[in-house]
Amino acid sequence: MSFADVIGLMAPPGGEPIKPVPGIITLTTDFGLKDPYLGEMKGAILSINPGARLVDITHQIGPGDILEGSLILGEAYSYFPEGTVHLGVVDPGVGGRRRPVLIETRRYFFVGPDNGLFARALEGERTKRVIHLKDKRYFLKEISNTFHGRDIFGPVAAHLSAGVSPESFGPRVKRTAPLDIPPVRKSGDTIRGVVIYVDSFGNLLTNIGKNALEGISPERIEVGVGGVTVKGLKRTYGDAPPAPPGRLAAIIGSSGFLEIAANRAMASVILGAKAGEEVFVRKIKG
Amino acid sequence: MSFADVIGLMAPPGGEPIKPVPGIITLTTDFGLKDPYLGEMKGAILSINPGARLVDITHQIGPGDILEGSLILGEAYSYFPEGTVHLGVVDPGVGGRRRPVLIETRRYFFVGPDNGLFARALEGERTKRVIHLKDKRYFLKEISNTFHGRDIFGPVAAHLSAGVSPESFGPRVKRTAPLDIPPVRKSGDTIRGVVIYVDSFGNLLTNIGKNALEGISPERIEVGVGGVTVKGLKRTYGDAPPAPPGRLAAIIGSSGFLEIAANRAMASVILGAKAGEEVFVRKIKG
Amino acid sequence: MSFADVIGLMAPPGGEPIKPVPGIITLTTDFGLKDPYLGEMKGAILSINPGARLVDITHQIGPGDILEGSLILGEAYSYFPEGTVHLGVVDPGVGGRRRPVLIETRRYFFVGPDNGLFARALEGERTKRVIHLKDKRYFLKEISNTFHGRDIFGPVAAHLSAGVSPESFGPRVKRTAPLDIPPVRKSGDTIRGVVIYVDSFGNLLTNIGKNALEGISPERIEVGVGGVTVKGLKRTYGDAPPAPPGRLAAIIGSSGFLEIAANRAMASVILGAKAGEEVFVRKIKG
Repeated sequence: MSFADVIGLMAPPGGEPIKPVPGIITLTTDFGLKDPYLGEMKGAILSINPGARLVDITHQIGPGDILEGSLILGEAYSYFPEGTVHLGVVDPGVGGRRRPVLIETRRYFFVGPDNGLFARALEGERTKRVIHLKDKRYFLKEISNTFHGRDIFGPVAAHLSAGVSPESFGPRVKRTAPLDIPPVRKSGDTIRGVVIYVDSFGNLLTNIGKNALEGISPERIEVGVGGVTVKGLKRTYGDAPPAPPGRLAAIIGSSGFLEIAANRAMASVILGAKAGEEVFVRKIKG
Repeated sequence: MSFADVIGLMAPPGGEPIKPVPGIITLTTDFGLKDPYLGEMKGAILSINPGARLVDITHQIGPGDILEGSLILGEAYSYFPEGTVHLGVVDPGVGGRRRPVLIETRRYFFVGPDNGLFARALEGERTKRVIHLKDKRYFLKEISNTFHGRDIFGPVAAHLSAGVSPESFGPRVKRTAPLDIPPVRKSGDTIRGVVIYVDSFGNLLTNIGKNALEGISPERIEVGVGGVTVKGLKRTYGDAPPAPPGRLAAIIGSSGFLEIAANRAMASVILGAKAGEEVFVRKIKG
Repeated sequence: MSFADVIGLMAPPGGEPIKPVPGIITLTTDFGLKDPYLGEMKGAILSINPGARLVDITHQIGPGDILEGSLILGEAYSYFPEGTVHLGVVDPGVGGRRRPVLIETRRYFFVGPDNGLFARALEGERTKRVIHLKDKRYFLKEISNTFHGRDIFGPVAAHLSAGVSPESFGPRVKRTAPLDIPPVRKSGDTIRGVVIYVDSFGNLLTNIGKNALEGISPERIEVGVGGVTVKGLKRTYGDAPPAPPGRLAAIIGSSGFLEIAANRAMASVILGAKAGEEVFVRKIKG
């Protein structure tokens, strides 16, 4: 499943431009917290806009794991004030063909590689324009082939947060790249997917979207994962509290995908499940 | 041992109100640094008060480990300027009966669940008032059952740092919850406790408070841990430098509790000791 | 090899003083992210200069690993705006004979222990003056023997960022301590060194400086590490992309030292190499 269709539906140009008023730039990367890379990128940003306010979302994305980065940024981005610049750098194709972009939506700016990293966030947004970052005046003077976060994306985010208008950075392009999510397979009454992310509370996020479950009433849904079957789809985590600790529940998470959670316990531990674990959904008969 | 008595001793109302002048909000949580939760909470705060200045104390508290959170916040909080808002979210009882509170002391504000998380810090403070957070105007519009850090505590800290007065958030209550510290046992001349925290330098912090050692002269105290006996209580780490590397020493730490440290080495490694390890204190006879 | 010579070449006094205009203080430490120490130091800084803007470079330096700290700070520092205060605390000799210093260069300030931690950064700078931190008015009132980051270095950085002039903090001294880098050995045509740092992308940084390779044409250089021989010295990572994934390449990194990298793969994994691994460089004959 890809989000190409959703992302293709861009809002027409025009309307009030948003401004990066608060100067807030969020950072989502796979740099980790030890190497000098994060410091280099922060320094490059502050050298251009010393008033920028940097807010870490995470730097612990698995190296090159675009899907994980997209999921995490997609969960967190919308809590920030309008005008926030979301800088994302999970960039395994650095130096290759993927385009460096600035995406402006009705509420936010996204700056980074056009490789699907922003796809989950863009599902919740109306895209106004996508700019191919080409104007080297807004990059560092020397551009490496290995670190566009420091040399291109950080500097562009800094200039943007300092008031440079989006169209200054390059020409407009029509689309952004879709996110490559493992496909869901259907065979007869059964929908088969996989766990795509396990959060640190042990909740299992799957690639099975709520659309795939349409037409089945929640109490007749049966979810299988790790050799265990969970009956019924709960509406919120809130249905679970009266249940005994460790009771598993299937819910549709805030991202619109099927999740498996455990009451006051880690579903991942109970089920011994990791990302990649197979999940199936069936309609209970009778 | 609990700190209920200490915390019960609240200062009378009145006096000059402190103001969260610098807009500084510290964050102490068990969220970890990978999941989107920390970003969501930071975003929620900045959406309410874009001028808030967020300072991480730690997000590496063990999941739901209130004692550990209280120890770490209790060590760090007092170095911050007056008026700082200390936001703490280690909240295993989220959605349950524990109260969401704002605690105002002579110097600081504390916002979070009333489950003992602030107890160590409050020992060093004069509490002015405790507010039960009830006014939903200061929460996010949608409140989940699972994440009050983002939905209640972060937003209240943000409004507070933006100048909303403490009494706006809800009614006053009389007490805060004590911290559940494992009890110290006495049998004859021997005091028995446990290691409650091991810091990253390998120092072992115990639950044996300095009061328990009153009446014994420091040089006649004998501390046993991990099969080893340490004689004499040093006054500061500073007594240790002339000692050979690896020499163990017992001291009363800045928190008022017995610690076991090693000179330029990790006591935890030398002793193979973790949190939960038994510790005893005896008076040397003769 | 030490950097004493380079560091000894200090710029003459005089010239325009730089000012810590943006109030930015970067932090490079071995504190980790869990203990209260980092929060304590940040609090101490903000209590002195509530307007200081703290930017983490890293807190994951190996405990007491001055070389690692110097390498990471040396890579990152120069991306920050002029006037930035770089606070570094990797301080295994705390309480001992090493001097607490403030180093002013043409562009930056460095504050921390004089133990080599700033040596890599200073190679790229013109040092204007080195101040021995002695004036206790700029320290915390109580100074521990174990934590000068919180008690001395943080407060000095805070006062400096608030506009206190460098000479206020103590007398001038002539030199800074060199960094203790393992020496490179030469025997006949072979230069022998070691891997001194492995970054999180698996690149191996060695102690073999570009000077050691002068007079050998790049295509005739042969580098041996982990039982494998790499022929030719590439000019940039950028030469590698047309190569197959996993292809090893030797380059001179931005720090001026020999590095071994792999195309879209981790050289450290391919070679099973860690810090300390032996490396040799030979001239190809013929």
